Amino acid sequence: MYTVKGSIWIVSKSGTFIGYGRAILLERIKEYGSISEAAKSMKMSYKHAWEMIDSMNKQSKTPLIERIAGGKGGGGTKLTPEGDKVLKKFWELYKGFEKFNASASSKLKF
Amino acid sequence: MYTVKGSIWIVSKSGTFIGYGRAILLERIKEYGSISEAAKSMKMSYKHAWEMIDSMNKQSKTPLIERIAGGKGGGGTKLTPEGDKVLKKFWELYKGFEKFNASASSKLKF
Repeated sequence: MYTVKGSIWIVSKSGTFIGYGRAILLERIKEYGSISEAAKSMKMSYKHAWEMIDSMNKQSKTPLIERIAGGKGGGGTKLTPEGDKVLKKFWELYKGFEKFNASASSKLKF
Repeated sequence: MYTVKGSIWIVSKSGTFIGYGRAILLERIKEYGSISEAAKSMKMSYKHAWEMIDSMNKQSKTPLIERIAGGKGGGGTKLTPEGDKVLKKFWELYKGFEKFNASASSKLKF
């Protein structure tokens, strides 16, 4: 019984733009409204999370996340429309890849 | 300009069965008729090459390579029909994956 496994990511000329880890980070930022909470939930340092975000922002026409000016709640961080678009595109790609793997797995007979 | 990149391999319940590196190793064994020459051509130790082959053999119904009894030429190593079949299947999968990536890349517009 064999199964196809794999990994997929999107690159620009500067390197990795978005892969599974970065997509999860963006999801968590959406969920928590905070980079530090998002990083904590992934057992990742704030520095590492920030470097990933900075890398994505620099490879994108417009930034993927934005700071919300602090009011009563002390502000926070949210995805820009561009961030939402990139995330949606990545999950579309990821689902297509999962389909490809499932179909390829079903064809494996050695 | 974004591009989809990825990696793909086949697993059994015991772990990795075959991926790109192991496929190239089998190709080189076909080419050189020798595990040590194949390993050398990949700047890989004989031990590492042998461990990869041993791992593949153990996960397969029948071994993927066989020793040719030494005659004048001193014998050698060649792929069994099962080895050829596995290699063919892997390259089919790999080509399908390359197609998937090219098609997905062409759909990326951020």
